[in-house]
Formats: sequence, structure tokens, C-alpha cells
Amino acid sequence: MITFLSDYGLSDVFVGVCHAVIAGICPEARVIDLTHGVPRGDALAGALMLRAAVRYAPVGVHLAVVDPGVGSERPALAVRTVDGRRFVGPDNGLLSLCFSAGGGVAEAVDVGRSPFALEPVSATFHGRDIFAPVAARLAGGASLHEAGEPCDPDGLVRLELPCAHVEDGALVAHALYLDRFGNVQLEAERGELPAWEVRPGEHVVVSLRGEAWPALYGRTFADVPAGELLVYEDSDRRLAVAVNQGSAVERLGVSVGQEIRIAPA
Amino acid sequence: MITFLSDYGLSDVFVGVCHAVIAGICPEARVIDLTHGVPRGDALAGALMLRAAVRYAPVGVHLAVVDPGVGSERPALAVRTVDGRRFVGPDNGLLSLCFSAGGGVAEAVDVGRSPFALEPVSATFHGRDIFAPVAARLAGGASLHEAGEPCDPDGLVRLELPCAHVEDGALVAHALYLDRFGNVQLEAERGELPAWEVRPGEHVVVSLRGEAWPALYGRTFADVPAGELLVYEDSDRRLAVAVNQGSAVERLGVSVGQEIRIAPA
Amino acid sequence: MITFLSDYGLSDVFVGVCHAVIAGICPEARVIDLTHGVPRGDALAGALMLRAAVRYAPVGVHLAVVDPGVGSERPALAVRTVDGRRFVGPDNGLLSLCFSAGGGVAEAVDVGRSPFALEPVSATFHGRDIFAPVAARLAGGASLHEAGEPCDPDGLVRLELPCAHVEDGALVAHALYLDRFGNVQLEAERGELPAWEVRPGEHVVVSLRGEAWPALYGRTFADVPAGELLVYEDSDRRLAVAVNQGSAVERLGVSVGQEIRIAPA
Repeated sequence: MITFLSDYGLSDVFVGVCHAVIAGICPEARVIDLTHGVPRGDALAGALMLRAAVRYAPVGVHLAVVDPGVGSERPALAVRTVDGRRFVGPDNGLLSLCFSAGGGVAEAVDVGRSPFALEPVSATFHGRDIFAPVAARLAGGASLHEAGEPCDPDGLVRLELPCAHVEDGALVAHALYLDRFGNVQLEAERGELPAWEVRPGEHVVVSLRGEAWPALYGRTFADVPAGELLVYEDSDRRLAVAVNQGSAVERLGVSVGQEIRIAPA
Repeated sequence: MITFLSDYGLSDVFVGVCHAVIAGICPEARVIDLTHGVPRGDALAGALMLRAAVRYAPVGVHLAVVDPGVGSERPALAVRTVDGRRFVGPDNGLLSLCFSAGGGVAEAVDVGRSPFALEPVSATFHGRDIFAPVAARLAGGASLHEAGEPCDPDGLVRLELPCAHVEDGALVAHALYLDRFGNVQLEAERGELPAWEVRPGEHVVVSLRGEAWPALYGRTFADVPAGELLVYEDSDRRLAVAVNQGSAVERLGVSVGQEIRIAPA
Repeated sequence: MITFLSDYGLSDVFVGVCHAVIAGICPEARVIDLTHGVPRGDALAGALMLRAAVRYAPVGVHLAVVDPGVGSERPALAVRTVDGRRFVGPDNGLLSLCFSAGGGVAEAVDVGRSPFALEPVSATFHGRDIFAPVAARLAGGASLHEAGEPCDPDGLVRLELPCAHVEDGALVAHALYLDRFGNVQLEAERGELPAWEVRPGEHVVVSLRGEAWPALYGRTFADVPAGELLVYEDSDRRLAVAVNQGSAVERLGVSVGQEIRIAPA
């Protein structure tokens, strides 16, 4: 079992070629596409999507490629976490949110000159030439130390997420992820914010850059009429803002990383 | 064998997560993605696409999620039709066009509190927490009555399609589905309209909202020069309007549900 | 093993229906989607994408459908190349770049009236009714001569690619393919252009329609600062133009087929 996530999109053959390479090396591997719609070169968005998806996948090999530094000095990695998952991808933080989720790094190797790579390795498509073949060989039974040179887990690039806090009774958090439905996920887990005393069913005010909108703190989209604003705990257990049958991204004009405030009405 | 259709799109991890959940529960299930491009929240479009696709699929488990009412009171269903297919999805009409196509409903259960669900069930992602796990367990051999509480087949939401008719020798029908090639499918099956006396090879006039365009009633796109309008029986055996190497949707400026008239020239 | 490439897109059920048809005929076949994002009706783009991807796939059955002439007189083909690959698709050049890559055509049959087709064959969806069923039967063990009527390999449509040349020390080549990252692939293989005396690390001038831009001839994107222009040998071993973390397609305003000149600075 291999999961596969990238920013390759589906309009070119990049993803198909990686599937073909895997099938050639390990025909019995089953590959599950988590998504190939990560915004181009956005390792943070990719890391968030990977973390959200991998927890629902069986323990296996997890291939992830969002790699604006392909062919430069950035190392290429295969990493085993304490829970037994094995991750393959560039060392730019993309994999890092899964490290703690998996109990920490048990073993890491640099696969930049892996014996499993397809030679000659191109300078711009390591997904095909390094990462997919390494993932396929790991899925086929190879061990991490056959795949590359050991490297120090403490030296791996790790992404830092912004932190939510409570200020004068208002929750202050950053927009973390915007999905295709226009829902805005915040870096704020309900359970970690006991100081925020708003309860489901109460009215709140959402504000951003000086503008403010009334909203309901509810459970699901249909708790508010079509077109109205909802604050809710989403399926990743994070607080989020939505518009029922509409787009909160458009309503608020929000971008990833902006600070949103949610205060009692 | 599980088929899977949704409005989740492919730019987020929603579809990938459902695949991962299925693989965790029933690793031997093969999942065929029918499409995840149903227009957001459009249960009618989803129902048409599901009906058009399922007839070509082997009898199996058919998972479908277009669910703007997720987490509200709308029931979650697993339904067996007389021909042995099993459908899993929300009770909003999405599955209903397949009921008659399958000879009627043989058994229906409400899976809203299914023992197969992933606990805790979120309020906004029943695809992951209810529908995918139920589909996976059915594919793995579970029976419908293990998946939920029996419910009355007569109480299920059923969609009504608009009807085509013939008026003064002209066919009058609604635009039912617009595909990515810009072809406009009408709710009009050729075989059910004996009163419409136009024959392949004859010229017709297509009109909509007072505007009119000349067209040929032909067999395939290449029957007219590039850029010209064609009326034809499409691969679902419905009448449709196309522009050879162009877009009839753009030419006519048509939206789903609008009434189109096709008269002899 | 079947690979599948088309211009069907993923927003309709066309691709899903073909998968369903294949699964019904040959449940044990594994299908790898190379891409379904070929620009609509563009057999040349499809041919380039197919050639680039197939070389990484195991020898098998290769289904490809970009078919603006569907239902017209254009033949439908199944072709075996000398290296043992079998291709299924329309006779419009789409498959032809793979013929020479595969050592030439060993056997070709016209499958337009194949006994393997799904009857009744529609006039507009041969992917579903002819090509997918033929591919599935070939994958299931059928031979080419069971699939259709023999036809003359010399009569098949073959695409001609424009040729790169060197003029006054400048490389002159056509834009061949534009990917979703905005990279511009040229019809120019480095190894076939010994007269072009530029070496990696040297500065060049890229010009198009009278406009000129400075660029570096490098190895990978990160060889130039973000936003700057790079000329490089891409992962298909062709010369290409990119903007690091940007789009060369937008920067140059280039379309497929336009002539680009790359001269020493």
C-alpha cells in the first residue's frame, strides 16, 4: 500500500508517469492518490493535507512530492516514524507534520543518490526518478537502510505552525487551509482552547482586517440559512468558518496566513 | 467492486481520504472513481451522472456523495435494488434515478447511526465517517440489515425529471446536462417521441429565449463543418445539441433547466 | 496492465464509465491513468504526452482516446509495435509517435467493427463502446487478429514534428508542449544539436516575435533566483524554458507551435 500526494496536478502526465514507474517496479503495490491538487510549490499546504489524510490511511509507504527546490542541494528523504509508517519526499518540511503525528522519527535516510533511483536521474523530475522508485522498492519489501545513506533526524526541516490564542474573550487564529468549497480552516483546535467560552448555538462576530460579520457557532452547514456565516468544528477537529451553500473564502476575502478573530456577539 | 461518485473535487484530500478509509476496512475492494466533478451540492446533476455511469458498471456497491445537507436531519442510506446493486449515500434524491433503473428498491436502511461508522462521526464529512465505511463493509460481505435500521422505501426522496413534448411539430425539452465539451443533453429520448417527425440528415432550427440558430439533425460531430451546430442522439440515447469542435453551451448561452425548442427548418 | 490517456477530463463520467466497462470485461486488469487532461481534440499534444509517459510504463495495453473525428470515417485501431506494446485508439496520429519509439508497427487491425465492441455502438462515445472493450479483451488475453480486420501499417496516419536547427549560433525551435507549471518544452533534443555551442552555466538570450529576455542555461529551477528565466534540459531530455517559481508560458506569452530562438548572450 502506497499513498501518493503531490502538486503535479492532473492535466499533465507527471502523476501517471509516477504510477507507471511504481507499477513497473512493484506490480502488486496498490497506490492511493490522496490528492495532486496541492497549490504549486506550497510545502505548508501540502504538509497540512498530508497530515489530515495520512491518519486515515493504513500504515504503509507514503509518497509526497511538493518540491520547488528539485535538483538543488535540498536532501531527498525516506523516513520511518515510530508508528511504522514510511514517508518518501523532499526535505523541505512537507513530511514534517507527520513526524510528530507518528510518534517521532525512528530512522531517516538521504535517498538523493539511492541505488533504487532510475538512472540517469533528471534535474527536474525527482518524483519519477527518485521518489516513486524508492517508494515502490520500500513497498516491495526493501528496508530504509538499503534505500539511502543514514542522516540525522534532528537535522530535518520542520515546519512551524502559527498558534491560536484567546484575547479579551475572542479567539485569534490564522487561516490555515482553504478548501474547494470555500471553507476556511483555522489553526485552532477546540479542545486546546478552554479559555474561549463560546458554546455551540451561540452567536459570534467574525472579524478580519477591521471588517466584521455576524455568524452562528454551530455544528454543521445547515444550522444556518443558505448564504449565512457559520463557525464550526470541522472534520479535522479544527475550528473553521463556512457559508452554507456559499464560500467563506469569498465572503471574507481571506488568504492563508491571515489572522481571524472570533468574539462572542 | 465499489464505484464512487461525489462533488468533492480532486484539489483537496476528501476523495483520497475516503479511498484510504475503504482500503483500511476492505483492502481487497477495488474502487472505481466515476467522477468527483459533480457541480457542488447539485444532487440532480449527480443523480443524472450516476444513472448514466452505473449501467456500465458491474453489479456491486455504488457509493455516491453529493450532500449539502450533511449533518442535518436528512437520513443517510444504504439501498439494495431489485437487480442486486447496493447504493450508499444521502437521502436527497441523488441515488433515486438508479432505483427505477434497477427495477425498484428491494431493501433500504438508514445508516445514520450505523455500527460500521468511524467514531466519533463528524458533523460535516459523512463521506469519510459513514458512507465510505459502510460501502467498504458491504463490499467486504456485510449485509444491509447489519449496516443500519430498516426504513420504508416509499419514504425515500425521489427526483422528478422535466418532460419533453412535441408542440406544433417542434420538440420542446429542457437542458438536462452540460458536459465539459460544451454539449447540451436534453431530457428527451428519441424513442419516446414518435410525434417528432424529424429524421437524421434533415435541417432544423434550435431556439431558446426568442433566439434561433440553424442546425443539422445528424449522427456525429463531423457531420457538420467545424463551428456549426448539430442535433444528435447522444451516447446516453438522449437528444443533444453540439457544436463541432466548439461549445454549444457557449453558442446558445444555455443553463441547466432552460427550455429548448427544435423545429423542422 | 492497461494505461489510459484521453482528453475526457475528470469533471464528467466519461473516464469513470470506461473504467467500469473495463472492470466488467476484465476484472483482473489494472488500469493506470496517464492523464485525461489532454487539451480537447488536440491529437498532437496527446501524442507527445503518450510518448513521454509510455516509455516509463511496463509493456502492456495502452488505451488512448483524443478523437474529434469520432463516428466519422476515421478508422479505429489496435496496433502492436515491435517491442510488444499494444496500442488502442483512433487513427489520427495520436498513437503514431509511439510507433517509432516502439521499433515500428508489427501488426495493425481496424477495430471499427470489432466483435469485442459494446453493441449498439454509439456515434459519439467510441471510448466506451469500442476502445475500452477492445483494450480490456486484449489485456485479458485476446490477440490482435481477433479484435478486428488487418490493415496496412503504411497507411496509418503519422504526425510530423517540427525540426529544430541552429542558425548563426542560435538555436531555433518550436514550442512543443506547455505544462501546468508554465514550463515550455521545445522540439529540440540537446544530444542532436552539436552545433549549438552553449554550455550549462552560460547566459543566453531567449527571443520570440521580436521580443528578447535574458536567461541562464542551467540544470534546474533553483539555478536562478525566483522569477528569473532558465533554459534547461528537461526530464524528457528536451530543451525547455522555465521561470523559477513562476510561469515561462506567461512571461513569454508563448503558444504551442511558435518559434523560439535561444542565442548566446
